[in-house]
Amino acid sequence: MKLRPAVMSPEAFRDFGDVITSHGRSPRLINAGTSQRFDDVAIPDLAEGMGRAAIHLFRTEGRTLPVHVDVMERHPLGSQAFQPLAAIRSLVVVAHGQPEEGAIHAFLTAPGQGWNLKRGIWHAPLIMLGPCEVLVIERAPAGDNLDLMTLSSPIEITL
Amino acid sequence: MKLRPAVMSPEAFRDFGDVITSHGRSPRLINAGTSQRFDDVAIPDLAEGMGRAAIHLFRTEGRTLPVHVDVMERHPLGSQAFQPLAAIRSLVVVAHGQPEEGAIHAFLTAPGQGWNLKRGIWHAPLIMLGPCEVLVIERAPAGDNLDLMTLSSPIEITL
Repeated sequence: MKLRPAVMSPEAFRDFGDVITSHGRSPRLINAGTSQRFDDVAIPDLAEGMGRAAIHLFRTEGRTLPVHVDVMERHPLGSQAFQPLAAIRSLVVVAHGQPEEGAIHAFLTAPGQGWNLKRGIWHAPLIMLGPCEVLVIERAPAGDNLDLMTLSSPIEITL
Repeated sequence: MKLRPAVMSPEAFRDFGDVITSHGRSPRLINAGTSQRFDDVAIPDLAEGMGRAAIHLFRTEGRTLPVHVDVMERHPLGSQAFQPLAAIRSLVVVAHGQPEEGAIHAFLTAPGQGWNLKRGIWHAPLIMLGPCEVLVIERAPAGDNLDLMTLSSPIEITL
C-alpha cells in the first residue's frame, strides 16, 4: 500500500489529537506584557490516578523517503505528545480505529511542529525526516501501556 | 543587588529542579534502533488528584542585559517545565527558600536548553535573551497555584 501525506493541520488531525502550535490561537499577555501565553495547545490525557506525567527526550536518526511502515503501536492508558527541538519535519502516521488499509493516514508536519496523540490512537513509531531530539510528554510507567501490531503488508509513504 | 549568572548544569540546579538535556545521560535504543530514548529528563510533580497536566506555549520578547527583576513568583501545587523551541538562552532566576538577598541565584542556560522548576521554588518570570516560543508543562488549573512577591530592592543581572 502506498500513501501520500496530507499537510498537518489542527482540523485535519482533530480525530487523532492536537497540533502543538500558536498559529490561529488567541493569546493573553503575561509577565508585564513581555510574553504572550497560548494555553492548552495540547491536552494531555494521562489516566489520572493510574500513573504520572513523564517528560522524556528521544534522539532520532533522520529517515529518508520513501519510508516503509510495517509496525504500528498504541498506548491505551495515555496520550503522547511530541515536540521536535529542531526545525525538522515529521511524518505522523495514524489510523482511524484499527490499523487497516484505508484507515491509515499520514501527515507531514511543518519544520519543528509538535503534535499530541490521543490515548489509544494506533500510530507508527516516530519518523523524523532529519536527525533531531524530540521532547516527549506521556504517561509513566510504560508497563501495560504499549500494544504493538505488525501490518499484514507494509505501507510505503512518499511525497 | 547585582547578580552574575552561573552556568546552568544539572548539579548546580539540583536544589531547584531538572535541566532538560540528554547530555551525560544513558539512553536505550527503541524503534528498531532508529531512536535513542532518555527517560525522565524532567520529573513533573503535578499534585496528582488535585489537577491535571497541561501543555502551553509562551511566545516571549527577547530581553537585553542587564535584566532587572523586581517580582518573583512560585507555584505551590506543581512543578513547571520550560522548553525553548529555538536556540535562545535564558536567565533562570531562583531562590533557596524565601526570595531574599543572598538566597537568590541566577543561571544562564545553553541555547535551547530546557529546565523544570520544582514545586514551590520562588523564581523570576521567564527571561529569554531573544524572542522565541517556549513549551511549558505545568499543572492546571492555575487557580490558587500562583504566589507573587515584590522584592524590596530589584536585582540587576549582568554577565
